[in-house]
Amino acid sequence: MSPFAENPGAVVAAVIGLGSMGLGMARSMKRAGLDVVGYDITPAAVDRFIADGGRGAATPADAAKDADIVVSVVVNGAQTEAVLFGPEGVASTMKPGAVFISSATMDPAVARDLAQRVDAHGLHYLDAPISGGAAKAALGELTIMASGSTQAFDRARPGLDAMAGKVYELGDAAGTGAAFKMINQLLAGVHIAAACEAITFAAKQGLDLDKVFEVITASAGNSWMFENRVPHVLAGDYTPLSSIEIFVKDLGIVQDMARSERYPVPLAAAALQMYLAAAGAGMGRDDDSSLARLYAKLSGAELPGSAKEPHSL
Amino acid sequence: MSPFAENPGAVVAAVIGLGSMGLGMARSMKRAGLDVVGYDITPAAVDRFIADGGRGAATPADAAKDADIVVSVVVNGAQTEAVLFGPEGVASTMKPGAVFISSATMDPAVARDLAQRVDAHGLHYLDAPISGGAAKAALGELTIMASGSTQAFDRARPGLDAMAGKVYELGDAAGTGAAFKMINQLLAGVHIAAACEAITFAAKQGLDLDKVFEVITASAGNSWMFENRVPHVLAGDYTPLSSIEIFVKDLGIVQDMARSERYPVPLAAAALQMYLAAAGAGMGRDDDSSLARLYAKLSGAELPGSAKEPHSL
Repeated sequence: MSPFAENPGAVVAAVIGLGSMGLGMARSMKRAGLDVVGYDITPAAVDRFIADGGRGAATPADAAKDADIVVSVVVNGAQTEAVLFGPEGVASTMKPGAVFISSATMDPAVARDLAQRVDAHGLHYLDAPISGGAAKAALGELTIMASGSTQAFDRARPGLDAMAGKVYELGDAAGTGAAFKMINQLLAGVHIAAACEAITFAAKQGLDLDKVFEVITASAGNSWMFENRVPHVLAGDYTPLSSIEIFVKDLGIVQDMARSERYPVPLAAAALQMYLAAAGAGMGRDDDSSLARLYAKLSGAELPGSAKEPHSL
Repeated sequence: MSPFAENPGAVVAAVIGLGSMGLGMARSMKRAGLDVVGYDITPAAVDRFIADGGRGAATPADAAKDADIVVSVVVNGAQTEAVLFGPEGVASTMKPGAVFISSATMDPAVARDLAQRVDAHGLHYLDAPISGGAAKAALGELTIMASGSTQAFDRARPGLDAMAGKVYELGDAAGTGAAFKMINQLLAGVHIAAACEAITFAAKQGLDLDKVFEVITASAGNSWMFENRVPHVLAGDYTPLSSIEIFVKDLGIVQDMARSERYPVPLAAAALQMYLAAAGAGMGRDDDSSLARLYAKLSGAELPGSAKEPHSL
């Protein structure tokens, strides 16, 4: 039996980054009985967690100092490096043998480098990108694509059990989790662009878009993203659930990895150009299904709710 | 009650084109009790249907002369035009009021033109592209995306009921069925290319490909095509179920339509270039998942069963 099982309150977890994902993960661990300390660069985010009954900290180093588990839920590899090794970084205060769970999407080479530097501090590193969105984070039902040493997994277990519905254990080397996540993001980013290209092409031809949705979701042209994102287009509602800028970032990482490995990615490259165009046209913070609005503007197609377009277009 | 219900043998159906799809459709109608006459440009295909107990014909005109329903299952719009109006074409012998069911994938503008010319002969035209593959054709469980007049649907009904598991009735104008099919093909063609780009990128990074398949099919990066085609790559088996040349054709139609409508399709365009490269490299008649072999050759990635590659590579 795990030494934590009888008294999970003995496990202290720090969460660095209390955005929509991090807050849900912090709450899930608290609900499971862990003692959770939260930090965010925005004080209001910390206050929100304190209002939930959580503990707050003024710096990452403060949050991490008694923690058995530090979960980093920031945007990218550079921010993760700053959380670890920047001024007030957690590596300076984490207890020997504690585990750093890295959730940001990043180049596997960056994950390998960070893991090596964390190991050199006598700490454990779990490469653990997440998938599932804010709703699953709040429910403690994320999918985690994890790789790391046995010790890293053992130390991380109470946190993983609380945050995830499914943990893929992908091997003992940091970088493997990150690589799986990038394969998923390549596909997700291309599929959103394809869905928007197709549904707006259907609009351009004057087809009944609800019928197109019905037929395609029952056909070989379906994708998880078509089924999930096209309803935003049909509703004309581009309130961001996941933004254009997320895929500017993630397909940018795919491009960098592919260029460095001399691997051609023509589909991901074409998709990235469309996300860049949407961001350049002022839709960067809007929902990623805003690519449909970009195609509409480029072609004169009429989509539902086009009155809601940003003024910049 | 339909006049045919008590004696479906009274309905005569001609099938023009007895390839893997057409033969399955002819057999399904025969199994449902229709009197089926088959024609194919290859005499051996007709002999195969005769060996099943079907009736054969020496020309399309012969096959169609007593038919209530003529089902055309050829490759494209040009072949469909030849079936109708070429030497020995069916339009010259079809009975007044009989229906021509057109199953080939084609530009909606071509479907509209053919329908107009068929109408002028006192015949009915049902624009009825099919989806589902040879296995579903054999079972009489195709998906049919159909549009046409009420009379065309009424006349076609005994054939549709026998051939399809699901008939989408998409309106009374020829061309709408074709347009829905092209939206599906745009997505299907892009998703196969994305699946091959992603799985081979995973191979290039040395990931466990079976594990990649398991994780992606349970994640937001999944598509119908990823789930269906990647197993061919994992098995190293490129026996054609649907070939590279099919998507050279279908994404070519998408390009032509999009160019004519001043609609940009950067994703479909990038995918088409990869199908063209695969065809140019000698894999045109191989399974469309052969795009993975193309990515492997372009990058040095190692895929399962690479010993089975065609010599032309």
